[in-house]
Amino acid sequence: MQPNELIAPSTVWLVGGGPGDPDLLTRKAERLIAAADIVFYDALVGPGVLDLIPAHVVRVSVGKRSGRHSKDQNSINYLIVKAALSGKRVVRLKGGDPSIFGRSAEEIAHCHAHGVPVRICPGITAASAASASGLASLTLRGASRGLTFVTAHARAGEPLDLDWAALASAETTLAIYMGRAASGTVSRELIAHGLDPETPVMIGVNVSLPNERIMRGKLSALEFLVRAVSDSDPTVLLIGAAVEGDTPSSTPAKAGVQLGKPSEMRLIG
Amino acid sequence: MQPNELIAPSTVWLVGGGPGDPDLLTRKAERLIAAADIVFYDALVGPGVLDLIPAHVVRVSVGKRSGRHSKDQNSINYLIVKAALSGKRVVRLKGGDPSIFGRSAEEIAHCHAHGVPVRICPGITAASAASASGLASLTLRGASRGLTFVTAHARAGEPLDLDWAALASAETTLAIYMGRAASGTVSRELIAHGLDPETPVMIGVNVSLPNERIMRGKLSALEFLVRAVSDSDPTVLLIGAAVEGDTPSSTPAKAGVQLGKPSEMRLIG
Repeated sequence: MQPNELIAPSTVWLVGGGPGDPDLLTRKAERLIAAADIVFYDALVGPGVLDLIPAHVVRVSVGKRSGRHSKDQNSINYLIVKAALSGKRVVRLKGGDPSIFGRSAEEIAHCHAHGVPVRICPGITAASAASASGLASLTLRGASRGLTFVTAHARAGEPLDLDWAALASAETTLAIYMGRAASGTVSRELIAHGLDPETPVMIGVNVSLPNERIMRGKLSALEFLVRAVSDSDPTVLLIGAAVEGDTPSSTPAKAGVQLGKPSEMRLIG
Repeated sequence: MQPNELIAPSTVWLVGGGPGDPDLLTRKAERLIAAADIVFYDALVGPGVLDLIPAHVVRVSVGKRSGRHSKDQNSINYLIVKAALSGKRVVRLKGGDPSIFGRSAEEIAHCHAHGVPVRICPGITAASAASASGLASLTLRGASRGLTFVTAHARAGEPLDLDWAALASAETTLAIYMGRAASGTVSRELIAHGLDPETPVMIGVNVSLPNERIMRGKLSALEFLVRAVSDSDPTVLLIGAAVEGDTPSSTPAKAGVQLGKPSEMRLIG
């Protein structure tokens, strides 16, 4: 298939740019970017992902950062529809997955209101990438049987309004997007609603990028741990038994280790 | 970088194979598969993804299907560790994302117990792919502020033991993996615990594959809708206001539509 058959003219594709590492882009997203006439991209799209945009494709930053969302969304809706109505093949490149805290519904509705066909290419969301980097799981058979994603972003001046009682479940892993500023509230409220202060937490900062940091600790120390994170660094908080993960043995791999037969094998962890 | 520098000998990579469409594989996963000596793959890995495994790479099916998980996991742990200890570059290719209902923790612990280094490459999980195909979102600003993933897979003969009161939240989108068989229970319990019977549902079957089906309806009709799904078809249920999505306007795109200025634009939906 030639690149330009992927996107029809006057069409918008909402494309997941993933967590930042260009290697974590899907093969489809890579092709869509190459087939576009114009790419509108968020501040959270990794620089390596932007490098995959061919030189002849127009690129437009519609950078949104925590705290400045609301006032920009109307302009973004306007720009992508205007480009599509002028006949362009439009890619709207978003950090992470368009369907998870990506405000895609507003862009889709706006496209449809103007008769512009729109489609979605999914992306790797930050929680998946953070757990991969931290060699942890987000679910754990028998222990962490579910996974909940919330965003800790509150409108300026408003308190964080989350259902803490529902979130404070020992059986559910919690992934909190944009959680840096609210980490103290998160920790206090979850503990106040019954979650064990010793619950493992993992903090993923700049996940999948060269300056990635993965920090681990206990829920009670979350606010302290997060102090080391800069205001501008995208941060995802993972909370729950599953994210403790498993530390590598100090024994190096060697062929002489006795493995036993499958039926005799011990399940660890 | 030459392919074989990606994976050190005697190392295991747990790699997300995504929902099925080979184009929804990450660029990194594609390279890891090409750099492996041996690939152990699940039944849920798409045939198009398997086609990306080069001919010289050994491929081993460790097919797991709903209902037959438990008895196979020990054998898989054994096989991947044995291959790594014999010096192989091992890829353990899993459907979806290894960190979400992928039983990665058990494989990681087993590798570590035998001194085998292990790493994770994330993948697109079924809920993301289903919402993309259905042109819906999983979160909706102001309405669906969170997203919960659970699996409806129960051990044979055991009832489905989920915290229905916590799951029946109108403000949270629910993604239920392996939800086909339990759809009647899911619908009844959520309604019994207070969720509106009119809550939108989306059923994603064989998501991203050529035989994909996306069905929509109301929570009260979930069991009826799911009757059209075969026992062997992987199915994800999405439940919540966000998944209703937005239907395309019948007006074709045309350049003459009046767009107004950004500040005058109406937010729809």
